[in-house]
Amino acid sequence: MDRTDRTAGIAFVKGHGTRNDFVLLPDPDGALDLTPELVAAMCDRRSGVGADGVLRVVRSKAEPDAASMADQAEWFMDYRNADGSLSETCGNGLRVFARYLVDSGLAAPGGLPIATRAGVVRVDVGLAGDITVDMGVPQVFDPSFATLAGVKHEGLRVSMGNPHLVCVTETPVETLDLSAPPEVDDAVFPTGVNVEFVNLLDDAHAVLRVHERGVGETESCGSGACAVAAALGVRQGVTAGEWELDVLGGRLRLALDGETGHVSLTGPAVLVAEGRWLPA
Amino acid sequence: MDRTDRTAGIAFVKGHGTRNDFVLLPDPDGALDLTPELVAAMCDRRSGVGADGVLRVVRSKAEPDAASMADQAEWFMDYRNADGSLSETCGNGLRVFARYLVDSGLAAPGGLPIATRAGVVRVDVGLAGDITVDMGVPQVFDPSFATLAGVKHEGLRVSMGNPHLVCVTETPVETLDLSAPPEVDDAVFPTGVNVEFVNLLDDAHAVLRVHERGVGETESCGSGACAVAAALGVRQGVTAGEWELDVLGGRLRLALDGETGHVSLTGPAVLVAEGRWLPA
Repeated sequence: MDRTDRTAGIAFVKGHGTRNDFVLLPDPDGALDLTPELVAAMCDRRSGVGADGVLRVVRSKAEPDAASMADQAEWFMDYRNADGSLSETCGNGLRVFARYLVDSGLAAPGGLPIATRAGVVRVDVGLAGDITVDMGVPQVFDPSFATLAGVKHEGLRVSMGNPHLVCVTETPVETLDLSAPPEVDDAVFPTGVNVEFVNLLDDAHAVLRVHERGVGETESCGSGACAVAAALGVRQGVTAGEWELDVLGGRLRLALDGETGHVSLTGPAVLVAEGRWLPA
Repeated sequence: MDRTDRTAGIAFVKGHGTRNDFVLLPDPDGALDLTPELVAAMCDRRSGVGADGVLRVVRSKAEPDAASMADQAEWFMDYRNADGSLSETCGNGLRVFARYLVDSGLAAPGGLPIATRAGVVRVDVGLAGDITVDMGVPQVFDPSFATLAGVKHEGLRVSMGNPHLVCVTETPVETLDLSAPPEVDDAVFPTGVNVEFVNLLDDAHAVLRVHERGVGETESCGSGACAVAAALGVRQGVTAGEWELDVLGGRLRLALDGETGHVSLTGPAVLVAEGRWLPA
């Protein structure tokens, strides 16, 4: 475009991790006035760029919410949902965020601490290839149930900060209808729950479909994949292990660390386009 | 991005007309090898830029399919569906295409002929504001029926090159469930039909919802809006007239020319982003 007023457009990069997609807004010095309205406009899939959310890339010291983490993590992932609301963190988003930092030369490859609203998260990122995110310590609770099409599926409750119910089932997950939320026990899940349906292919490989509360079925849910690893650890009686999970959006690898209790999430991150938002 | 291999990325502009959205690929000299796979990758709403289709912007003389129109129209709109298949033309796409030509300085505002696979189309485009596309002469045929949720709606059959069934109904269109195709007479519509449901607010203003064959409900259908104008002309016993149509994606204005029989479609076109596709 030749029109001068448009050369001032906001720069963006679009990327995705297992088809969970983001608009990244490079804003190192925190100069951008990112309103909920602008986030929603950019994330609109028809009249905007389109994405599940926005990741603003800002130095921790330039952002009041993150300044206290500035000595531990140079960069803050300011994550916004597609509707413009704030969100704490996102496993798929962290991979895309780290890929952008390394590809753009803002950070060196290796172990990279990233500040989020849920604290500082460690990411391992190379010059290319899959990226690993330390997702912290899952907490596993008592079993509960999810009912789908009249069939009751037993599952384990897992917290990754947000609530999950992991149901390992013999029913082939590709036959499930997740167009409506599974029924769960409202007394157990007063704020709703993300429900994972899992088929085990073998002890180290499973297929996963996820219904995210308030969203519907998604092609990938990072915290849900971690909850599955925690539940499989309990089910298999191990405190350390590695699993491959096939989600609709691709393949993730999960690992439980027996010493720290942390679960890590490994998967791809791809930057597909870069551009400028054209002011109306 | 600083990586040198990425500076060679394909340039694109994203735009929409009443929320029917397109990736425009400026390719004046026809140098781009635009495969169906690349179109599908770019139009993927999660792992690509995301759009209903691609509009390649190429000089008619540089494109074998369009060279015969080069003396009438400098620019050829090479329209591809999101799945990579070829398509003839698109009323909403023509507005976005014309807005790009004028904004980028490739064409002067005014009456602008554009070559398409359906022939040369005349577009009226200013430096800003709504854009008018001459959509040709509609053909109106006998009535037929569409059945939705057990209710039979009578409609007029209209051809805009593609088949339409325009049902003016007292049932408020916002209450209709268009998640499944309306049932129609397969003997009358052997290749399917686009079905328009219309509420008249007054003689010159209507509300429209459209089910497009093979697609589902869409927020805007340019040829469908033109079919509605043709049907309203017959219904109101006029050969010339103007109508406003509210579609889910915005407002369109339609005009029937009593002398030529042509219908014209006027509406907005917005360019929202420009960028480069990053090679994998």
